[in-house]
Amino acid sequence: MAQAELKKRLRSDYKFFLEYRTRWSDNDMYDHMNNSIYYFLFDSLVNSYLIQHCSLHPPTSSQVGLVVYSHCNYFAPLAFPAVVDLALRVNKLGRSSVTYEIGVFEQGREEVCAVGQFVHVFVERQTMKPGAKGMGESMREGLERIKAAGEDDKAKL
Amino acid sequence: MAQAELKKRLRSDYKFFLEYRTRWSDNDMYDHMNNSIYYFLFDSLVNSYLIQHCSLHPPTSSQVGLVVYSHCNYFAPLAFPAVVDLALRVNKLGRSSVTYEIGVFEQGREEVCAVGQFVHVFVERQTMKPGAKGMGESMREGLERIKAAGEDDKAKL
Amino acid sequence: MAQAELKKRLRSDYKFFLEYRTRWSDNDMYDHMNNSIYYFLFDSLVNSYLIQHCSLHPPTSSQVGLVVYSHCNYFAPLAFPAVVDLALRVNKLGRSSVTYEIGVFEQGREEVCAVGQFVHVFVERQTMKPGAKGMGESMREGLERIKAAGEDDKAKL
Amino acid sequence: MAQAELKKRLRSDYKFFLEYRTRWSDNDMYDHMNNSIYYFLFDSLVNSYLIQHCSLHPPTSSQVGLVVYSHCNYFAPLAFPAVVDLALRVNKLGRSSVTYEIGVFEQGREEVCAVGQFVHVFVERQTMKPGAKGMGESMREGLERIKAAGEDDKAKL
Repeated sequence: MAQAELKKRLRSDYKFFLEYRTRWSDNDMYDHMNNSIYYFLFDSLVNSYLIQHCSLHPPTSSQVGLVVYSHCNYFAPLAFPAVVDLALRVNKLGRSSVTYEIGVFEQGREEVCAVGQFVHVFVERQTMKPGAKGMGESMREGLERIKAAGEDDKAKL
Repeated sequence: MAQAELKKRLRSDYKFFLEYRTRWSDNDMYDHMNNSIYYFLFDSLVNSYLIQHCSLHPPTSSQVGLVVYSHCNYFAPLAFPAVVDLALRVNKLGRSSVTYEIGVFEQGREEVCAVGQFVHVFVERQTMKPGAKGMGESMREGLERIKAAGEDDKAKL
Repeated sequence: MAQAELKKRLRSDYKFFLEYRTRWSDNDMYDHMNNSIYYFLFDSLVNSYLIQHCSLHPPTSSQVGLVVYSHCNYFAPLAFPAVVDLALRVNKLGRSSVTYEIGVFEQGREEVCAVGQFVHVFVERQTMKPGAKGMGESMREGLERIKAAGEDDKAKL
Repeated sequence: MAQAELKKRLRSDYKFFLEYRTRWSDNDMYDHMNNSIYYFLFDSLVNSYLIQHCSLHPPTSSQVGLVVYSHCNYFAPLAFPAVVDLALRVNKLGRSSVTYEIGVFEQGREEVCAVGQFVHVFVERQTMKPGAKGMGESMREGLERIKAAGEDDKAKL
């Protein structure tokens, strides 16, 4: 998706939200949040959703999500001790895979600071390969609930 | 201080609080928060207090705090996606140095999960050595406000 | 660039190398290196090169590199205590910006485990905006030395 | 143990060594390695030793090590891109628990930068409590091999 379009993202473009407080160690030597930290936040948001709304139980679930691709566009810096609103939607839902989009917003500011995507492939824990039937039903139902309208046609990796 | 005494710490033993959400990456292979992560939280709590209540501005302040010692007792495990209450007090306030104590509590549970201490020495940014007059006035006043009663006699490194 | 093509990357496709030992905390609950950690490694490799071969001195240089975009394709898992070879090349060199490509190889294995890219925009430290003359000369010369042949035409963000 | 004594530690006081390269993200805003990062390194060194010399296999071993206490004295700063020598010894070996001491040395420098300790209690994975017979035999034998002479009498938490 074009960078110019992503830069216009608003909270209202997303379906699930969590507030996260930045940490001292998130800032690098240039006094802003290091680019890698955004991916830690993406992971935290997505897995919170999977645990709370899709019946994922990381230590025991028969299927687990492997990240096969991730990216992020950075539009404006953030710095500790900012508090951020993380915003989630599903852009594409396949048989065994899902493409998430995450918006990172600073509290008190309307413009988006960063937009990322990542792709989970759900695999059987025993074989680390996708199962014959794809992802489980409770996973699919949970992910459908935060799917952005009409994204299956538009979304590209 | 005896471990048995620290294990009885309650939220009411502390003076300043921040809520922190754990991150996916905080958990290690054993499905609980890695012991090192607690120190990231200590740093985040203390620096939040210094910035908000003691006029610290990390990129420009003429004095900065160097950590010369830290420790932690772990009493009960925590795991993502838990939300924790971090609780702070000052145990000892010297001319250039301060000893913090931090309690880590899981939301919804009264017993403390971990108790740590660390020592900051405030040094001049130019020389990286303590100044002749010790820490600045606004720093001292801010730290005095969260000092635990009678701790100067009891506290030991 | 097509994922299938990236998956065929060899060490010989790159120009600068560093060996990195994984850490215990790099593994997540599924006993492999967390996807976010790769970006820490990319940052470490690139900044090592900039410091050692392009005269970057992060605390004082008049220009600093801001990451505006990053991505990663994950082909095969890694896990602590693996040792990895990080491999770097420049895919595109603009007036103020540079696109790096990083390959992550496990020691003792020929196939690439992950391939990432990220884009640095060099800005003046005072204004946080690109300077009128673009990046400094020693930076440009250092980056030219690891430029992949013919990549300016092919590379796309 | 007295801080003054620890500050005199040399590489020759230790029994097992690993070289670790620092990462860009290890540095905080003050351009030196953040105090919390040292604990990541301690964990990495100790678990490398347990895996390579004590038959630990984190995903499946019937016993796992829980950290119940840790501390660190910081004597001199380190900064990315330094390479460090991590040095390990066992100070105290109990029925189910072990006290490690770790020295952190910068390559090319004789004086120690930091000295830490931490305590592992080995518990049964099923119950998360120490077993009736304490730690397993291969664990005990591996730890005996790096035990500092005469430390059982002197070591204190």
